[in-house]
Amino acid sequence: MSLAEATTTDIASLMAEIGRNARKGANALKIATPEQKRTALLTAAGAINAHRKKILAANALDMQAAEEKGISKAFLDRLLLTDARIDGIIEAVKTIAELPDPVGTVIAEWDRPNGLHIERVRTPLGVIGVIFESRPNVTADAGALCIKSGNAVILRGGSDSFHSSRAIVDCLLDGLHLAGLPVECVQLVPTTDRAAVGEMLKGLEGNVDVIVPRGGKTLVARVQAEARVPVFAHLEGLVHVYIDKSADLEKAVSVTLNAKMRRTGICGAAETLLVHKDVVATHLKPIIEALVAKGCEIRGDATVMSLIPEAHEATEKDWQTEYEDAIISVRIVDNVEAAIAHIEHYSSHHTEAIIAEDPAAVERFFNEIDSAILMHNASTQFADGGEFGFGGEIGIATGKMHARGPVGVEQLTSFKYRVRGNGQTRP
Amino acid sequence: MSLAEATTTDIASLMAEIGRNARKGANALKIATPEQKRTALLTAAGAINAHRKKILAANALDMQAAEEKGISKAFLDRLLLTDARIDGIIEAVKTIAELPDPVGTVIAEWDRPNGLHIERVRTPLGVIGVIFESRPNVTADAGALCIKSGNAVILRGGSDSFHSSRAIVDCLLDGLHLAGLPVECVQLVPTTDRAAVGEMLKGLEGNVDVIVPRGGKTLVARVQAEARVPVFAHLEGLVHVYIDKSADLEKAVSVTLNAKMRRTGICGAAETLLVHKDVVATHLKPIIEALVAKGCEIRGDATVMSLIPEAHEATEKDWQTEYEDAIISVRIVDNVEAAIAHIEHYSSHHTEAIIAEDPAAVERFFNEIDSAILMHNASTQFADGGEFGFGGEIGIATGKMHARGPVGVEQLTSFKYRVRGNGQTRP
Repeated sequence: MSLAEATTTDIASLMAEIGRNARKGANALKIATPEQKRTALLTAAGAINAHRKKILAANALDMQAAEEKGISKAFLDRLLLTDARIDGIIEAVKTIAELPDPVGTVIAEWDRPNGLHIERVRTPLGVIGVIFESRPNVTADAGALCIKSGNAVILRGGSDSFHSSRAIVDCLLDGLHLAGLPVECVQLVPTTDRAAVGEMLKGLEGNVDVIVPRGGKTLVARVQAEARVPVFAHLEGLVHVYIDKSADLEKAVSVTLNAKMRRTGICGAAETLLVHKDVVATHLKPIIEALVAKGCEIRGDATVMSLIPEAHEATEKDWQTEYEDAIISVRIVDNVEAAIAHIEHYSSHHTEAIIAEDPAAVERFFNEIDSAILMHNASTQFADGGEFGFGGEIGIATGKMHARGPVGVEQLTSFKYRVRGNGQTRP
Repeated sequence: MSLAEATTTDIASLMAEIGRNARKGANALKIATPEQKRTALLTAAGAINAHRKKILAANALDMQAAEEKGISKAFLDRLLLTDARIDGIIEAVKTIAELPDPVGTVIAEWDRPNGLHIERVRTPLGVIGVIFESRPNVTADAGALCIKSGNAVILRGGSDSFHSSRAIVDCLLDGLHLAGLPVECVQLVPTTDRAAVGEMLKGLEGNVDVIVPRGGKTLVARVQAEARVPVFAHLEGLVHVYIDKSADLEKAVSVTLNAKMRRTGICGAAETLLVHKDVVATHLKPIIEALVAKGCEIRGDATVMSLIPEAHEATEKDWQTEYEDAIISVRIVDNVEAAIAHIEHYSSHHTEAIIAEDPAAVERFFNEIDSAILMHNASTQFADGGEFGFGGEIGIATGKMHARGPVGVEQLTSFKYRVRGNGQTRP
């Protein structure tokens, strides 16, 4: 029977089997030595290099099928692998290989008056389910981050990148094999049937500990609605930049321009600009002119409309919209309190920036806004695991539980307590 | 309309209103100063002392109603307040008041090569929903822990302790009021309708960030099955003690006796004893005799049966059972690997202990078992927030996400990143 003919029951039992195998892999990986995990990843990086032609050929198959389906240019660009992109993948896997091993690290330790010594130490989470759309590089990043953090991973990629992902996973398996680790540590779901995703979201009989969705809003929303296991996800990055009355003009222009226009489609891109009324006369025009010169559309409130001829009128919907495009909504605010109130009302709690020289305004912004990442005089596009020094990220989490912000190897761990005594009994 | 006549729709709108109020409270509490929170709690402790007679009178009402319903002695004992118990409650609230304030604490900070300075700082979770059975002291503990950690709390106590809980909550409100904090920070659900619990589990329109169930298995299982928000819970404490071949006899006897018999009904009480075959001749009898002398029933495997006349035969079900009673299951194992395998198979991953003098056996036990708390030569009954030095606990979590082990004020926080730059833009 080919997988194409598989029934829903077959998918359920196939996925249950994958779950049980993943748990076996996780049990081996949680006690693997740091050297074994490092070896596995460096070997995998070498294998990706050695099998470059095979990976490109697999990708060519995926590209051809996608082109025949008439899929969008932006999508095809994400799907495409080139020699340079494979170099990037190899570099990422090597970087992750050389990160400090988080497992077994003592996070905190203390003594109790009765002589008990308590340590809190990092442990793997277990099995991570990664559901992603057709970006072949996610296969390598997610696989490498999970191995490094001692977690088995079940990868369920988009159907359009199936051959590319398969070729990359084969290289990860080479690494596991050479390091003496079971190949069950990394499994690519061998079917593109959507029922497989449903099974993963149900938790595979307790054999998935957390789900990480990587993809567009539709995917993430489905995962959040259906998952019966914890999810590390962000649905939206409705990111704000606030120009305080104490803002340095040059920083205000360059940071806003970078935050909005460096790449408009990533989650750390700014969507709304808030400007203190006292600097409208000095700062607003230069910022807007820089944005317009780069091709950004401006949607403003009444004050902005009266000053900026290019501006369209912003509606209530604009303050609620993550454009992911070269569009920005601009509002004038009376003070830092009003900026904070706007952000707390509209933000998706991903990343916000304040441009200011007044420390009191910065502290207020930092204390009162409850977003995962707050920036002072720096571009919101630094909201990224690599830029944070995490070596890579499996995603960015906007929930408040467990992981928040960039999810790197440390965030893929839990902890346990080790308590050492010499015969203590509790009174 | 009295609440007794409320319809399900009324309950839903009542609970939604409570949720919105809680969010208002949380927004005030997250920016409250450490001194405000300390003042609120010390004032509350003073109010509990001052209103002692009122609290005892309220408790007498609850006790009378419970006795008339013919409720069990054990239940009545948990419900009962006495002067000594009120002293304990006051002491707990004072201890929590004097804990270091977790909010705003910098957990980690580092510099990036581009000059960005990144801090990870603790923030409150938001609104905590606590669903508990009829232990009036949970009202004070949970309320105080939530205030200290900057979280608003919605308390839903058992119907049998309603008057006692109300009287204690009034004292917490006195504290909030005097500290200039909104009374919405602590709300007691004013209805004993079970539909109110259902509404809390649905998340009150995004106004509950985490649910903490405190109570028996039926309650916890319902919460875990129905909750659409994260839950800090443990369903069972199926706790193991392993006597290694290197175990000191005296420690083996005293620790096992304490782990099983100090209090049999708490989650850290031992349920299964595993003994290395090499010390059966020397250690088994003294341990069993000490347990039997304290009134413990023994259920053993074939070897235990052949050596201990009092032993009943242990069935497969015994290895799976949290007795919460003076019963212990006893199995002889070939080595530390076999002990680990038994524990990984049957444990609820709450707490396990090894009694051993051989460091290699201890390290293996500590590394390979993935339970929240692992003890070496110490009683499993130390699995407790107070004993860990947390000042108190709102519960013990056996999940791997976010909180694990005793849940104190630190575990009731999340974090955010504060990033300070001087105009950095991302290349």
